[in-house]
Amino acid sequence: MIVTINKRTPAAERERITTELRRQQNIVTEEIVGQNKIAYALLGDTARINPDLIEQISPFIEQVLRIEKPFKRASLEFRQGQPSEVTVSTPNGAVTFGQNHPLVIIAGPCSVENEEMIIDTARVVKAAGAQFLRGGAYKPRTSPYAFQGHGESALGLLAQAREATGLGIITEVMDTADVEQVAAVADILQIGARNMQNYPLLRKVGAKNKPVLLKRGLSATIEEWLMAAEYILDAGNPNVILCERGIRSFDSKYTRNTLDLSVVPVLRSLTHLPIVIDPSHATGKSEYVPTMAMAAIAAGTDSLMIEVHPNPAEAMSDGPQSLTLENFVRLMQEMMPLAQFCGRGSTLSLPTATTSKVSFLSKSRS
Amino acid sequence: MIVTINKRTPAAERERITTELRRQQNIVTEEIVGQNKIAYALLGDTARINPDLIEQISPFIEQVLRIEKPFKRASLEFRQGQPSEVTVSTPNGAVTFGQNHPLVIIAGPCSVENEEMIIDTARVVKAAGAQFLRGGAYKPRTSPYAFQGHGESALGLLAQAREATGLGIITEVMDTADVEQVAAVADILQIGARNMQNYPLLRKVGAKNKPVLLKRGLSATIEEWLMAAEYILDAGNPNVILCERGIRSFDSKYTRNTLDLSVVPVLRSLTHLPIVIDPSHATGKSEYVPTMAMAAIAAGTDSLMIEVHPNPAEAMSDGPQSLTLENFVRLMQEMMPLAQFCGRGSTLSLPTATTSKVSFLSKSRS
Amino acid sequence: MIVTINKRTPAAERERITTELRRQQNIVTEEIVGQNKIAYALLGDTARINPDLIEQISPFIEQVLRIEKPFKRASLEFRQGQPSEVTVSTPNGAVTFGQNHPLVIIAGPCSVENEEMIIDTARVVKAAGAQFLRGGAYKPRTSPYAFQGHGESALGLLAQAREATGLGIITEVMDTADVEQVAAVADILQIGARNMQNYPLLRKVGAKNKPVLLKRGLSATIEEWLMAAEYILDAGNPNVILCERGIRSFDSKYTRNTLDLSVVPVLRSLTHLPIVIDPSHATGKSEYVPTMAMAAIAAGTDSLMIEVHPNPAEAMSDGPQSLTLENFVRLMQEMMPLAQFCGRGSTLSLPTATTSKVSFLSKSRS
Amino acid sequence: MIVTINKRTPAAERERITTELRRQQNIVTEEIVGQNKIAYALLGDTARINPDLIEQISPFIEQVLRIEKPFKRASLEFRQGQPSEVTVSTPNGAVTFGQNHPLVIIAGPCSVENEEMIIDTARVVKAAGAQFLRGGAYKPRTSPYAFQGHGESALGLLAQAREATGLGIITEVMDTADVEQVAAVADILQIGARNMQNYPLLRKVGAKNKPVLLKRGLSATIEEWLMAAEYILDAGNPNVILCERGIRSFDSKYTRNTLDLSVVPVLRSLTHLPIVIDPSHATGKSEYVPTMAMAAIAAGTDSLMIEVHPNPAEAMSDGPQSLTLENFVRLMQEMMPLAQFCGRGSTLSLPTATTSKVSFLSKSRS
Repeated sequence: MIVTINKRTPAAERERITTELRRQQNIVTEEIVGQNKIAYALLGDTARINPDLIEQISPFIEQVLRIEKPFKRASLEFRQGQPSEVTVSTPNGAVTFGQNHPLVIIAGPCSVENEEMIIDTARVVKAAGAQFLRGGAYKPRTSPYAFQGHGESALGLLAQAREATGLGIITEVMDTADVEQVAAVADILQIGARNMQNYPLLRKVGAKNKPVLLKRGLSATIEEWLMAAEYILDAGNPNVILCERGIRSFDSKYTRNTLDLSVVPVLRSLTHLPIVIDPSHATGKSEYVPTMAMAAIAAGTDSLMIEVHPNPAEAMSDGPQSLTLENFVRLMQEMMPLAQFCGRGSTLSLPTATTSKVSFLSKSRS
Repeated sequence: MIVTINKRTPAAERERITTELRRQQNIVTEEIVGQNKIAYALLGDTARINPDLIEQISPFIEQVLRIEKPFKRASLEFRQGQPSEVTVSTPNGAVTFGQNHPLVIIAGPCSVENEEMIIDTARVVKAAGAQFLRGGAYKPRTSPYAFQGHGESALGLLAQAREATGLGIITEVMDTADVEQVAAVADILQIGARNMQNYPLLRKVGAKNKPVLLKRGLSATIEEWLMAAEYILDAGNPNVILCERGIRSFDSKYTRNTLDLSVVPVLRSLTHLPIVIDPSHATGKSEYVPTMAMAAIAAGTDSLMIEVHPNPAEAMSDGPQSLTLENFVRLMQEMMPLAQFCGRGSTLSLPTATTSKVSFLSKSRS
Repeated sequence: MIVTINKRTPAAERERITTELRRQQNIVTEEIVGQNKIAYALLGDTARINPDLIEQISPFIEQVLRIEKPFKRASLEFRQGQPSEVTVSTPNGAVTFGQNHPLVIIAGPCSVENEEMIIDTARVVKAAGAQFLRGGAYKPRTSPYAFQGHGESALGLLAQAREATGLGIITEVMDTADVEQVAAVADILQIGARNMQNYPLLRKVGAKNKPVLLKRGLSATIEEWLMAAEYILDAGNPNVILCERGIRSFDSKYTRNTLDLSVVPVLRSLTHLPIVIDPSHATGKSEYVPTMAMAAIAAGTDSLMIEVHPNPAEAMSDGPQSLTLENFVRLMQEMMPLAQFCGRGSTLSLPTATTSKVSFLSKSRS
Repeated sequence: MIVTINKRTPAAERERITTELRRQQNIVTEEIVGQNKIAYALLGDTARINPDLIEQISPFIEQVLRIEKPFKRASLEFRQGQPSEVTVSTPNGAVTFGQNHPLVIIAGPCSVENEEMIIDTARVVKAAGAQFLRGGAYKPRTSPYAFQGHGESALGLLAQAREATGLGIITEVMDTADVEQVAAVADILQIGARNMQNYPLLRKVGAKNKPVLLKRGLSATIEEWLMAAEYILDAGNPNVILCERGIRSFDSKYTRNTLDLSVVPVLRSLTHLPIVIDPSHATGKSEYVPTMAMAAIAAGTDSLMIEVHPNPAEAMSDGPQSLTLENFVRLMQEMMPLAQFCGRGSTLSLPTATTSKVSFLSKSRS
């Protein structure tokens, strides 16, 4: 339930309203200071509250709105229609994920394999204009016999890459027992698709003071996804970013998953949270990544997460979906003008076109 | 099997090669004259043909290539990597669907309801820059008690709209018994999603001299879709256009279907056939249509099919997914610059911006 | 809307009620004489009818019940909770599909390949206790290059098999143009999964005086399936049998489709129509067929449709899912006692156990 | 890789073979003593091992078999086609899950709500013939605002119910941090569908000396499911039981999930692990549970897990899919004779028919 008050409400009256609202049993009351309005969110067993009685608390109360959706803090109503901004401080400065901000680029390998590859990759993606480096230290793998990530030592390499390039770091945490350790290095904690409904883990990252990128589960409905975000928000962490990475459908012959790009307009109508699109996991093939990245920009995504590897053929995981460094640079040269065209251009300087002027996309997209 | 010959092959030798190839039993041989090459497609029980023996037929034979995919005529190899062009003559002139041509816009109501609505709609979509009018005369409806389309009389109204505006007409045919009648009016015959594997119907439209728009079945794999196209191609009709209109997934709470936009790069890697995206059926909600239309353009679609209705709230079918005429005009004003930016701009004059300059998309996409 | 009257209503009053009900505009009224009750079904635009006014027509009217479901004639309410019986006359006598009747067995090859194979198969499945022979004359195949069935000549062979064994014949019709021809031979017309929403075809078989077996579409919801049945019922044919044959899911590595056996209890709660389970198409592998057939019997199916071929390895279609004749005979010996145990035993004499006493099922099911 | 040796191999030679096999680098070798054979499983990077060289180690080596499937320990080959037996000791005695053992019944509420309800339920399901009590202490709930289970105190109540009835206890563990605590009470640890790919959790329960029931993920392929089992087996715990609980499909109007009963024959052809079917979560509606339980027995499941609640209408979770105590007793009376008929009858005394003789199933299944 959202209680909106007049922005000219005197401080004393405001305090009185707060006190009154906090008297409701089994209800948590939170103040939300928006651009033009002040509101209170009442969360908990609000079904039994009579909105009329709330309105009678003060003449400065302008509106009492019930949030009908099962997700409350994640709902657009919770922020009265205003998009969230998730600002992450990186050595290169603060980067903001949000609808009124430039497109944010996250790039890097599936797994951190060794020092050279992660530092090289970081340097190239930084030079090409990315703001964040992704790289897995702990990898959820279908097979227990597959490479599971280098763990703690990989976290150390990510810290080095951060220092070397100033890029923010995003890496996955899989176990409640690892949250502290991963959070010591990561600027953004990633919850993977397989853990989208790992509730103890959601609560744990919700209790940390770090932004969380929440990947959509392989067959999670949009509502289940927002409910998973709600776990994090409800645990006290307002900095949640939603990442679509393809859903499971009946056809996986040509693509690994099915990129559900229509989440962009749907989420815009439901939630204030920022959106990342991951075309690499969605398609599972590097040749399809550029086209879907371009489509995602036109759809209005706030950010893209793209897998890049210095030598995809030799990658320890997810090689087929990783762009080479060269192809990533070319893709950036294609994407940035489109982002600009769509009003999401970066104020950061664009990469200089040192590579071939003939777009490597021309064949697949023209 | 594709047999490519040197373009300087003397006419007599070419004839001799053809004769030799035609000697193969249970094999159909077709000459394909491409931009730079001449090739022969051998179709049928080619598994038992020894490519070496074919090569020995003439020193002018440059390559003998087996098409490994189950779809042959629909495969990219069949046209040696060159995209098809499907040219449709309309009263306003020929319009071509193809990768090296401007974006084609098909717009109109789900069903032809009456003379006024169809003529009005046709005039507005024409003025806004569309090349084709869509409108159902025969409607496949889940319920036998729902409006089934006005049938023959609706075909008459479509003919009137064609005369009034010069737009090409695209309308669905559902029964082999109706093909002649529908083809008498339609410039493009539409095969609906539910009939994608109605093989007698595919053969029947394959035998007609009219382009066919083949919608993807609700849960058809890409391969099944191309095999359905193969039925039409194999029946002698080379003018097939593929239309993605959303697939069935596990989540239909917020969208009617899931737009599988990654078909664009996948189809480009598999087939030469042109692509249409239908964001209206895919999302099922008019508010999501503009965003997905923009995404489709950036993905490189050859054409868009968009449902438009003068009064969606009163539509006899599919109202919730239909744009108002005004919103369609605005969307055209948004889409055309993007198409231009993506190298798919029309040479046709753009609509004059008579409506509000403030984009109606700004809220949902910015 | 169902109007139930007292069974002691005098004939004159009954006539008066009928006349009154028929006065409603745009409404079709039908009398349904049940075991204990007489009722009238009002079909059409009943939303605007006031039930109270209907009740006032006569004091003999006991109940006026609105059918809330979109399917009306297919709904359980339409028959006041009584299951339908679909009785088919075959040379060997009438066979009834229905909840209070013995399990009906339909068996035979995917396609009718030649005289010998179809007659041999018919003889064996007859001797083993089956009542119907299945066999395709017109085959819907994903590829235009695959065997499409022998068509008309195959129908002739089915007629021969019918004469030779007395089995009823069930075969698929794919085109409205073929309905007459197929109905001349078939005792039951089969509508295949791909044509479940081929509405002109549904209407055409709905206008024939032959029972129709309606297969569920690959990704049809239960409601869409019942709406497809409604098309046939609404066209005047009350003899519809529903056949579950597996749905498309995300996993097709080990089974061709996913047998949705829970349709049995669900359909029982929604409709009066009889149910057939086809474990052959559902699993796509002959080794999984017996287990799923046994499960279907325990679930209470009214009938089973099982693919059988004298030499599956050489079958022109669907070999991998066809039982050999010997394995079919053994399966019948396994199934019949279970059917008996479940109260669905046949009064027909059981096959004599001429083959190995060691059950071929023991390995897979024990 | 499986190396089978002659059962008359002298002890010294056997030791020599073991030593030789253990020399392979990066390979774990394990002895598997089967009923009739002795075998060694070589696990790890076996791709580079030459089977011929292994055969040359000793003339007593009879066969060297590569396991082609990605799951090794879970594969049928690993146990040379012999089914596993998972024996659980309960206060009432040892209970074995396995193909050559009686059907095992697990019953109980979704959540442990209070002492009275859990003790009452335990007493009734015990009297009706169940061997295990299920009941959630930690509940994974889609919403953070829904009842999350009573946690530790609920574990105490389960221990009480165990003492009071002698039933084995099965309850879910969701967090690596809770494994010790839950294992102190549970006889079988349950991994829920949402955690099927929570690999740290799988490894943790794999390191415990307690049987694990592994539920199939909502959209997990059979192969992914077996790979998840492989994590537990690989961590050292051989006592894994697989539980099918319905998959996500495109239709959830009438059932919560789709029970994929064909996993029974498929798993039998792939793995030695025992199978449990959970018709309660699969259908989500108590009225459909009995039919699917009967079908599962006929399919040959080793065990059933059924939700039961003294007052489903007031249940704190999953009420709609819970049977009343009375209906559970009736279902047991229906199921036990079928299990007997299928050769899976219990040697435990059957419940006395104190309730109505008219089967409550007769309506839905007859």
